[in-house]
Amino acid sequence: MTFDTVIRGGTVATASDTFACDVGISDGRIAALGHDLGDAGQTIDATGRLVLPGGIDSHVHFSQPSGPGIVMADDFESGTRAAAFGGNTTVLPFCLQERGQSLRQAVRDYHAKADGNCYIDVSFHLIISDPTEQVLGQDLPALIKDGYTSFKVFMTYEDLALSDRQILEVMAVARETGALVMVHAENFDAIRFLTDRLEQAGHTAPHFHGASRPIAVEREATHRAIALAELIDVPVMIVHVSNRQAMEEIRRAQQRGLKVFGETCPQYLVLTEKDMEGLNMEGTKYVCSPPPRDVPSQVACWEGLQQGTFSVFSSDHCAFRYDTTGKLAPKGRTSFRWVPNGIPGVETRLPILFSEGVVKGRIDLNRFVALSATNHAKTYGLYPRKGTIAIGSDADIAIWDPAREVTISQDILHHGPDYTPYEGFRVTGWPMTTLVRGEVVVANGTLVGRKGAGQHLARDASLFASARD
Amino acid sequence: MTFDTVIRGGTVATASDTFACDVGISDGRIAALGHDLGDAGQTIDATGRLVLPGGIDSHVHFSQPSGPGIVMADDFESGTRAAAFGGNTTVLPFCLQERGQSLRQAVRDYHAKADGNCYIDVSFHLIISDPTEQVLGQDLPALIKDGYTSFKVFMTYEDLALSDRQILEVMAVARETGALVMVHAENFDAIRFLTDRLEQAGHTAPHFHGASRPIAVEREATHRAIALAELIDVPVMIVHVSNRQAMEEIRRAQQRGLKVFGETCPQYLVLTEKDMEGLNMEGTKYVCSPPPRDVPSQVACWEGLQQGTFSVFSSDHCAFRYDTTGKLAPKGRTSFRWVPNGIPGVETRLPILFSEGVVKGRIDLNRFVALSATNHAKTYGLYPRKGTIAIGSDADIAIWDPAREVTISQDILHHGPDYTPYEGFRVTGWPMTTLVRGEVVVANGTLVGRKGAGQHLARDASLFASARD
Amino acid sequence: MTFDTVIRGGTVATASDTFACDVGISDGRIAALGHDLGDAGQTIDATGRLVLPGGIDSHVHFSQPSGPGIVMADDFESGTRAAAFGGNTTVLPFCLQERGQSLRQAVRDYHAKADGNCYIDVSFHLIISDPTEQVLGQDLPALIKDGYTSFKVFMTYEDLALSDRQILEVMAVARETGALVMVHAENFDAIRFLTDRLEQAGHTAPHFHGASRPIAVEREATHRAIALAELIDVPVMIVHVSNRQAMEEIRRAQQRGLKVFGETCPQYLVLTEKDMEGLNMEGTKYVCSPPPRDVPSQVACWEGLQQGTFSVFSSDHCAFRYDTTGKLAPKGRTSFRWVPNGIPGVETRLPILFSEGVVKGRIDLNRFVALSATNHAKTYGLYPRKGTIAIGSDADIAIWDPAREVTISQDILHHGPDYTPYEGFRVTGWPMTTLVRGEVVVANGTLVGRKGAGQHLARDASLFASARD
Amino acid sequence: MTFDTVIRGGTVATASDTFACDVGISDGRIAALGHDLGDAGQTIDATGRLVLPGGIDSHVHFSQPSGPGIVMADDFESGTRAAAFGGNTTVLPFCLQERGQSLRQAVRDYHAKADGNCYIDVSFHLIISDPTEQVLGQDLPALIKDGYTSFKVFMTYEDLALSDRQILEVMAVARETGALVMVHAENFDAIRFLTDRLEQAGHTAPHFHGASRPIAVEREATHRAIALAELIDVPVMIVHVSNRQAMEEIRRAQQRGLKVFGETCPQYLVLTEKDMEGLNMEGTKYVCSPPPRDVPSQVACWEGLQQGTFSVFSSDHCAFRYDTTGKLAPKGRTSFRWVPNGIPGVETRLPILFSEGVVKGRIDLNRFVALSATNHAKTYGLYPRKGTIAIGSDADIAIWDPAREVTISQDILHHGPDYTPYEGFRVTGWPMTTLVRGEVVVANGTLVGRKGAGQHLARDASLFASARD
Repeated sequence: MTFDTVIRGGTVATASDTFACDVGISDGRIAALGHDLGDAGQTIDATGRLVLPGGIDSHVHFSQPSGPGIVMADDFESGTRAAAFGGNTTVLPFCLQERGQSLRQAVRDYHAKADGNCYIDVSFHLIISDPTEQVLGQDLPALIKDGYTSFKVFMTYEDLALSDRQILEVMAVARETGALVMVHAENFDAIRFLTDRLEQAGHTAPHFHGASRPIAVEREATHRAIALAELIDVPVMIVHVSNRQAMEEIRRAQQRGLKVFGETCPQYLVLTEKDMEGLNMEGTKYVCSPPPRDVPSQVACWEGLQQGTFSVFSSDHCAFRYDTTGKLAPKGRTSFRWVPNGIPGVETRLPILFSEGVVKGRIDLNRFVALSATNHAKTYGLYPRKGTIAIGSDADIAIWDPAREVTISQDILHHGPDYTPYEGFRVTGWPMTTLVRGEVVVANGTLVGRKGAGQHLARDASLFASARD
Repeated sequence: MTFDTVIRGGTVATASDTFACDVGISDGRIAALGHDLGDAGQTIDATGRLVLPGGIDSHVHFSQPSGPGIVMADDFESGTRAAAFGGNTTVLPFCLQERGQSLRQAVRDYHAKADGNCYIDVSFHLIISDPTEQVLGQDLPALIKDGYTSFKVFMTYEDLALSDRQILEVMAVARETGALVMVHAENFDAIRFLTDRLEQAGHTAPHFHGASRPIAVEREATHRAIALAELIDVPVMIVHVSNRQAMEEIRRAQQRGLKVFGETCPQYLVLTEKDMEGLNMEGTKYVCSPPPRDVPSQVACWEGLQQGTFSVFSSDHCAFRYDTTGKLAPKGRTSFRWVPNGIPGVETRLPILFSEGVVKGRIDLNRFVALSATNHAKTYGLYPRKGTIAIGSDADIAIWDPAREVTISQDILHHGPDYTPYEGFRVTGWPMTTLVRGEVVVANGTLVGRKGAGQHLARDASLFASARD
Repeated sequence: MTFDTVIRGGTVATASDTFACDVGISDGRIAALGHDLGDAGQTIDATGRLVLPGGIDSHVHFSQPSGPGIVMADDFESGTRAAAFGGNTTVLPFCLQERGQSLRQAVRDYHAKADGNCYIDVSFHLIISDPTEQVLGQDLPALIKDGYTSFKVFMTYEDLALSDRQILEVMAVARETGALVMVHAENFDAIRFLTDRLEQAGHTAPHFHGASRPIAVEREATHRAIALAELIDVPVMIVHVSNRQAMEEIRRAQQRGLKVFGETCPQYLVLTEKDMEGLNMEGTKYVCSPPPRDVPSQVACWEGLQQGTFSVFSSDHCAFRYDTTGKLAPKGRTSFRWVPNGIPGVETRLPILFSEGVVKGRIDLNRFVALSATNHAKTYGLYPRKGTIAIGSDADIAIWDPAREVTISQDILHHGPDYTPYEGFRVTGWPMTTLVRGEVVVANGTLVGRKGAGQHLARDASLFASARD
Repeated sequence: MTFDTVIRGGTVATASDTFACDVGISDGRIAALGHDLGDAGQTIDATGRLVLPGGIDSHVHFSQPSGPGIVMADDFESGTRAAAFGGNTTVLPFCLQERGQSLRQAVRDYHAKADGNCYIDVSFHLIISDPTEQVLGQDLPALIKDGYTSFKVFMTYEDLALSDRQILEVMAVARETGALVMVHAENFDAIRFLTDRLEQAGHTAPHFHGASRPIAVEREATHRAIALAELIDVPVMIVHVSNRQAMEEIRRAQQRGLKVFGETCPQYLVLTEKDMEGLNMEGTKYVCSPPPRDVPSQVACWEGLQQGTFSVFSSDHCAFRYDTTGKLAPKGRTSFRWVPNGIPGVETRLPILFSEGVVKGRIDLNRFVALSATNHAKTYGLYPRKGTIAIGSDADIAIWDPAREVTISQDILHHGPDYTPYEGFRVTGWPMTTLVRGEVVVANGTLVGRKGAGQHLARDASLFASARD
């Protein structure tokens, strides 16, 4: 048997197993696992390296409209390129329906932005900001059938937040169609109230962002989102959980047998609200929502990863430059309220989890694979095409040097923004080579892939959601 | 020493103690406790009877506007008369601000309804349905200073439900003034959504009232109300709790050290949703919100009373006639949605708790006193004037025959509506005689009090709330 | 009406109420409460003072055999005298059956020690260390009938610890007779194992006492004691709880509806294990079991008192001198294992709880009364004779100066040992005058009572236990 | 490449993945996974079938001394043969040290019983019944080094139960050596007490076995075992958990971050205590410990499997004949106390879990693999040699017909006893072919393996335990 490519001599890991073998690739798929696999058009030496399923980052924002004068620092080109350098082979960006906009038009707009520009595979989650009758009755069900099988609702943010009634309406569509609902869970009214009060007291510096959305604000919305999902009897994914209280709401629900899933992100493992206290506007570099909390919250998020309360680990990459198009936009200087929310992370997500998790013994390598790839694929309808190293799956592979010591810095990254919140953070372990469907995108740290090689993926229904019609 | 009145030979009980003694009354107050108290203008023989603090029912609705064509079955005259027969000496009715109405005008309107018409003492809670700047900045703080030290907000009901933002605003006033916030905790959006769905499915019969507001709807709002109070750092009373899940939210909050209080009512101890399944419109007689649940919920409510999670036991008396002015109003016949919510209970609250609680051994007599009187007084700023039998307190006393067996029926009651939801319910123990400030209102089951003898009480701040200015 | 004694002008508090009035006493009982009570043989001016039920300390050890060469620092004379100075009117010392000894003989021995020597009333709990057939079948049931209605079992200590089987046997007797079982809950095997290991490692200094019985050792035994009581279906009192984990086991059991009660003590509110780290043997002054823990444990114990998980607050007074008869006994110098366990506290228990609890706003005055007196009486079958200020109850009263500032020091105390673990601790509020059955024992800080005036009390069954025969 | 054996056309599943491919086997190991694998000495057609890691049953008893006159119904020959028919490729039987016996002699005795007699691979857990200094200091550490890396302690049973002190001593050895401790958690004293009481009351029929060891008896010991492990800081496996309360103790411990593992068994999923109520002695067929409970307990055990509280699913196979050598032994007829404890299950464990779990949708196929094989291997030091289908692992494979409908009955089974407790139970899915290290033992339901082909396995330390020296 002859293969297009054989990765030789590495140690393969899946969500459950770790074993030494060659990986034979043909027609973009994994064709064989074994020792001394036969001839290959191309051979990649993985001696001393880990051969892992390519990372799937199921929570990224690229080229998303962000208000007047504000520009996201990553489009699909730079974003997917950075993702590839970060060991990822698929990302799931959000396709935002702006209020008043047709959902189908939003999808068309995003395809226009993405198609032909991606280095790795992408698939859109929809963001429903305007659940009109047209959206609920026709567009959304049709798009779900077309493979856009997950969508997100916001419980906060101007022009995005849905009412509980609207959330119930879209959850009902999910129940009918088998789509998966993701929820950004923070109480909008409480945030506005606290923000007003802080501003009235003259507390406008960036770090008051944290005080404007304390843990109880997130816990409340988490519990509410779960209750709404419970009423509709539909699974729900609570994204970017930042603290123990919210984590425990999810765990309580899981223990009651509800299909409630949780996600956390690097910023909740290694940053704290103190990072927002930098001089002048430095703190804005860390402003995201929910905000980073404190050390006990970090511990809780690790527990969530270790004990399975959180099944996916994503970046919530949402990058802005530290200039007037982003973090230093004029309005943001007047109050934390106007600082664009979000930080970059698509390139650093996996090294942080690997180093802080696997190397430091908090999680084993197989859980790393599950949290970084396999569970994303299973959750969002990409499995078994994506997310694992198994016969027949796409040859989406990241080859890691597990011993490489790297100090994260803006210099070495490839993302769009002009800073990283993890500047100076030291990690052990780094993804060196990335293959998407058998094609090398990054080879030992050098870009060799081609813009446009990445495809948009129509997805199946989540393994965890089931349509009832 | 000579007394105006001496109650001789009874067994007195307070929230902690039970002892045999005479009670000497002078100038409307309890002047002495002891054996063989001296001369008295009037002697009441209480041999073989219990001499208890008069009941305080801190949750009743009288003469409240209820929509076009709907009339509450009890005004202040009939309501306070029925209360007196039920062993009560003070009731706390709600004074409803209608949306668009000045709060001060609402108070004036209610005084016009109440003043001169009451048999026992009353004191208004305010219902804030329209928290304008005028209300929040001036009227409410001023009224709190005038002794209206508690107010209620609704999370459901058309024209009553406040947004989370509004609830935070009024809670902030409570924090400044030391007022106590009461919350009706059900998720309005979820109820509307479920109601629409039920109606669309043709499920309009009265008993679908239960399905339109399931337990998760109440649990969600309970958790949210607690979270909002936590953000403001203000005590909160969750009224009329009907089930285990909501009870446990309150208990969890209490265990975290929050000042969260809970109330339950007779309908959650002895009725179930099955009572709403009567033929034709019979089920409407039991329609109230939250709806009665099931037997495990009853058990949970008892646990809440036994373990102190619930500190007050009220009637939520809200009576309508079973005719076209109330339960059989034409619109209500088209859907449960339009059936007036509420059931009578001010006259039967205490016998039900005494019989099902004390006689059946679920609670002791002292907890009965606490739940029926003392805790209400302490919670709502009436203590020590009201709520106990102690030197200096108002001589508000109910004399019970603990062995009297009574079958509750409309025939023997004195309230305004033309039915009781407890028809045929058998109890042991009945309040025979009621004194308010030393004056006998009901004597061995006969009305001897005078309309207008009841006064409106300006109240202190709750013992459990504390102003921060 | 003429009284033997009238206490005039004070503020009386019970477990539920606080009110200003005179207290009239006749024949050793409270005869009247009211204003301007009539003539009295003796008048006590309580203006500006609190008139409280005399403290009941339901956990003290006097004159208990403590091993060769070791002598308890308090006998019944000094112990009850110190108790009176500390605002107590009744104490419940343990009557220890030594292994091999007849239980009836143990009772006779203790009466010989106590009778004629007490300043205040006493009543013995039995300690069952040798549950022979004779004890279980005859002596214990007979003694319970005679009014020794509670007994304690130990899960640790050489010559005291019972096996689980033995505990079940004595619990079965309690179930038959309505007696109440108290449990010292620490795992003996674990303590011995850890002690051996510590000694093998040369860790013999006093403060290793703490490491030899960590929190898990107490939590384990607490859970086990509760499980055993659950099997027999009998109430159980877990004494001297020192930390959150054990407290939460009790709370969990209570929430499941079990009749499980908890006690904590001053040492768990204001001492920590660091106190055992003094130079040389100074640490021995704080050695008791369970050991004082840490600040979070103190917080947990306060929560237990506030939320009702703990219903009684006792001293666990068990005093030794800081000399060779006690804390400095030769064997104790060789290892913490041999240091006599126990510290004094009968005189300081109430001022500490008053000052740290009531004055600092952690508990209100009524809960203070409940925790210091009323609940003890109800729990151990002394109510309503003892534990409250109510008509007909014994005139056991402590008159407090709530504003008096005192620095606790050995100089001002009256107990037997030559030190206090609370040396230098500052409190506000102090008991000035104590009356037992209407007789003044301590008058404004001066002993006026008579040795032998205190009586041994036969007790009823606990209100919380009920015999099944 | 040429293989000794290729399994073609099946669907392979691991603990995380499911994929269609051939499996190439060389030298007893899995050499390749891929499509259209090359030549093979032997081809097995797996079209339409599942190719799963062979089951590992980590809890079986063969040829274990069971008291005078009692003989286990399975020796290593019949036991491993039955296991092979049940889809297993490795079993972990217990090697029992009898009290007074040298541990090394016990191991020698068991090797004498097993060596040369097994159809599949075996590896002994040790049972420590007599932890002498010799055992703790020398034999046990040496045996652990020799690959006997797990041992079990009993908290109940005459001549087996260890004291808490002894358990701590053996746990300390585990901590030093990295061995894993398994605990049979039931309170011996409580069982003896209840058994005596039941017998005294004349309650000797088999079904009183259940009443003699109620749930609280198991919960107590579970909590205690966890506490002891916590003191030593050592992982612990709680075997054969039967109910919610014990499950929740394990879950609480896991949530606190402790390395506590749980196991449940088929009898706790599909039997109840009512099964012990058969006429005459029929109930004895279901007597095992802990006893089967009730339907809510079954639900709880499923939750434990679904949520990961239980990581392994074993049979606790412990078979006796329904004759005078076993269930009908003369002494057992006098009281349930003497009925041999244990039921067969090694052959039916996997079909029951597959049918009730996978087919009925309670768990997915990957969790089935984890619970039946992979987690056992990881837990007990056999991974990656055993427990998965991965390159380099032993070719231990079970080929299942997932659609085969079978009614379990004694007729079709191959175990030693003369009955099955699952007589008449209908399942879907059955293991047809079993390979151990590449050799076919059962081929489409026919025995083709050879007695003696099974080997004893020296094991590594558990992945979850780590030595500290």
